[in-house]
Amino acid sequence: MNDRDYMEMALSLAERGRGFTSPNPMVGAVVVKAGEVIGRGWHQRAGGPHAEVYAIDDAGSAARGADIYVTLEPCNHTGRTPPCTEKIINAGICRVVMAMRDPNPVAAGGLERLEAAGIAVVSGVCEEKARTLNESFVKYTQTKKPFVIVKCASTLDGRIATRTGDSKWITGPSARRYVHEIRHYADGILVGAGTVMADDPSLTTRLPDIDGQDPVRIILDPALETPADAKVLRQESDSGTIFIAAPDVDVDRKKLLESRGAKVLFIPMSASGFDLDTLLEAIGGLGITSLLVEGGSQVIGRFLRAGVADKLMLFFAPKLLGGDDGIPVTAGAGPEQMADAIRLDHLQVRRFDDDLLVEGYVTGSAGQED
Amino acid sequence: MNDRDYMEMALSLAERGRGFTSPNPMVGAVVVKAGEVIGRGWHQRAGGPHAEVYAIDDAGSAARGADIYVTLEPCNHTGRTPPCTEKIINAGICRVVMAMRDPNPVAAGGLERLEAAGIAVVSGVCEEKARTLNESFVKYTQTKKPFVIVKCASTLDGRIATRTGDSKWITGPSARRYVHEIRHYADGILVGAGTVMADDPSLTTRLPDIDGQDPVRIILDPALETPADAKVLRQESDSGTIFIAAPDVDVDRKKLLESRGAKVLFIPMSASGFDLDTLLEAIGGLGITSLLVEGGSQVIGRFLRAGVADKLMLFFAPKLLGGDDGIPVTAGAGPEQMADAIRLDHLQVRRFDDDLLVEGYVTGSAGQED
Repeated sequence: MNDRDYMEMALSLAERGRGFTSPNPMVGAVVVKAGEVIGRGWHQRAGGPHAEVYAIDDAGSAARGADIYVTLEPCNHTGRTPPCTEKIINAGICRVVMAMRDPNPVAAGGLERLEAAGIAVVSGVCEEKARTLNESFVKYTQTKKPFVIVKCASTLDGRIATRTGDSKWITGPSARRYVHEIRHYADGILVGAGTVMADDPSLTTRLPDIDGQDPVRIILDPALETPADAKVLRQESDSGTIFIAAPDVDVDRKKLLESRGAKVLFIPMSASGFDLDTLLEAIGGLGITSLLVEGGSQVIGRFLRAGVADKLMLFFAPKLLGGDDGIPVTAGAGPEQMADAIRLDHLQVRRFDDDLLVEGYVTGSAGQED
Repeated sequence: MNDRDYMEMALSLAERGRGFTSPNPMVGAVVVKAGEVIGRGWHQRAGGPHAEVYAIDDAGSAARGADIYVTLEPCNHTGRTPPCTEKIINAGICRVVMAMRDPNPVAAGGLERLEAAGIAVVSGVCEEKARTLNESFVKYTQTKKPFVIVKCASTLDGRIATRTGDSKWITGPSARRYVHEIRHYADGILVGAGTVMADDPSLTTRLPDIDGQDPVRIILDPALETPADAKVLRQESDSGTIFIAAPDVDVDRKKLLESRGAKVLFIPMSASGFDLDTLLEAIGGLGITSLLVEGGSQVIGRFLRAGVADKLMLFFAPKLLGGDDGIPVTAGAGPEQMADAIRLDHLQVRRFDDDLLVEGYVTGSAGQED
C-alpha cells in the first residue's frame, strides 16, 4: 500500500456521498498508522460533519502520530461546522496527504495552516480523479454557474423518437435505471416546454433501493404554455419546479403556474432563444451546482451550439430506425464544415445490457451562435 | 493445452488468409503429437493448397499417429486440389478435431469418410468462432447471395456530413485505415450514384503495408448518370466496376460506360428502388461472397429497411454537429413505432484512437417495405 492506494480508498469512501452533499463536495478520508487503516470517513450530507471528522473520530486516540489521506484540502474556515484543520492538529496527526487544493477561496488556506502547525503535507495525489469526482463543485465554486450535463438516448442512427413521437422504449431497464441515478446526483434537471407537452414527464428520481433526491425541475417555457395539470406541477417531491419565461410573458399565465406551487424566472431572449449564460447564472444563484439537460432536440442543440454544455452522456440503443423522419438528437442549424463540429474529450464507453453509454467532455466549442 | 487451445491456434492461423481466400473459406490447421505442435498451416489463397496439406507437410513423417485440429471439416471432393480426407488418411493421422461441418454440400462428407477410415473425429470445438470467422462463406454457400455489411461513419448525433456535404474528416486516420482493411476483406463494395457524383470516391483498397485486394466496385445508378470521368472508371485496379441500372435505361449511356471498361447489369425496380433480393442474387452469381455497402444515406436506409443487411459497422467520431441540417446516417421513411426499429445483436465496441466502432448483426428485420 502506498499513498495512491490509500487515496483510492478515500476516493471510494467519498463516492458514497454522491447525491447527498451538494452544494458541498464529496470528500473521503482514511487515517493510517504503521501501514494499517485505523479510521475511515466520508462527508455524508450537506450540513453534517466533514470526512476528516468522521475518520479521526473513527480512529479515536490512536490518531495521534498517524497520517490522514483526504480527497480535498481540509477546510480552514468555520461554516456550519468548525475548521477541519483544527480537528487534525488537535488529534495529533503528523502527516496530511490531500488529492487536491480546495477551489473554494472561502474554505482554502488549509494546507498553509497545517504546515504552520508543523504537520507534513503532500498535495496532488490522485488529483485528476479527485477533480473528476467533484467536477460540479469545482466548476460551481469557480464560476457560480452549474456544471451542465447533456443527456439523451437515441438509436444508432441518431433518433430520439419515431416520426410519431414514439420513444418508448429506446433503451432498456438498466440504462433507464442509471438515468435515475444521474437525476439523484444532479441538483437541477432541465427540459423544454415542448418535451413537457409531448411526453408529460415527471422528471423525478425513481430508484428502487435508494431514497433518491429529486432534482429541481426547470422548464424552458418562453410563453408559459405548460398546462396547469402537467405532471411536473403535480409531484409529491422534495424539490420544486421552476419555469423559465420571456420577460414579456402574460401575467395571468405566470400567476396560474405560481398558484400551482411553481416559481417563474424571467430570462432575456434573443432570436436564438433564451440567453443561456444569464440563465445559468440565475440557476447558479439558486444554489444549483449541477444541471442535467434532458431534451428535447431543440434544447440540446441550443446548449451544444452555445458552448455551455460541459459533459455529454449519450445512450445508444442497439437499434436503428433506418429512415430520416424520426426526431433527431439535436435540432437547429449546424455548421457548414465538419471541422467546426463540437468535439468531445476523454471519451468513455460503458454498457448497460445491450445499450451503450458514450460519455465525454465538450472541448473547443466556443459557442457558434449569437 | 486442451482441444480448445489447439483450435484457437488453428483459428489464428486461418485468420492470416483473410482477404485472399474468397470464394473459399479461411481455414487453419495444427498437427499435434504427444502435446507438442508439430505442424502448422493455413489456406493462403484461393486455388492454393488447403490448410491441412500445409500442416501435414509441415509435420512430415511425424504426422503418423498424430491429431489434427482444423477449423473446418476437411473437404471430401476434388476441386482445384485433391480431397483433404485422403491426405489425412494417407498421412496416418489418428484423430481429427474440427470446429464446424462444411456448409458447402459439394465439399461435405469429410467427417463420414474419415470415420469410415477408422479415424476418431470430434466436431464442434470453438464452433461459434469458426462460424463468425467464415460468416461470408457460410451465408454464401447456403444462399448464393453475398454476406452484406453496411458500414458508415457519423458524428454522435447521427450525421455523415454537414449540410454543405462536407465529411472530411469525420473519423481519424486509424479508423480510416481499418476501413481499407475491410475493403480488402470484401469481394464487392457498393454505393449509390449520388455518392459517386457528390464525393467522386475511388472505392479501392489503400493499405500501406499489405498488397490489399480491391473489391469489385458496384454503383447503384438507375439512369446511368455517373460521369464518364468518375474515379471509379479511372482506376488502376485488380477488379472491375459494375453499374446497376434500370432495365429501361438509355442505351447510349450504357455503351458509354461499357466503353470505359465497366459492366452494366439490369435489375428490376419498384417504387422504392431496385429489387434488392434480385440484386444480391445477381451479384452472388458473379462469385461475390461478401458485399460492403458504404452509402450514402438513401442506400443504407434501403438496405436496412429491406432486411437484406447482415452486419453493421458504425464508426462514430467523438463529435456532434449540434443541428439537424446535416446529412443523416439513414434516409427514407422510418417506422411509426420504436418497437419496429431494426435491432442489432452481438453488439461489440472497438476503439480506434478517439473514434468508436460499433458492430452488430441485424436481427428481426423482416423487411418493412414493398
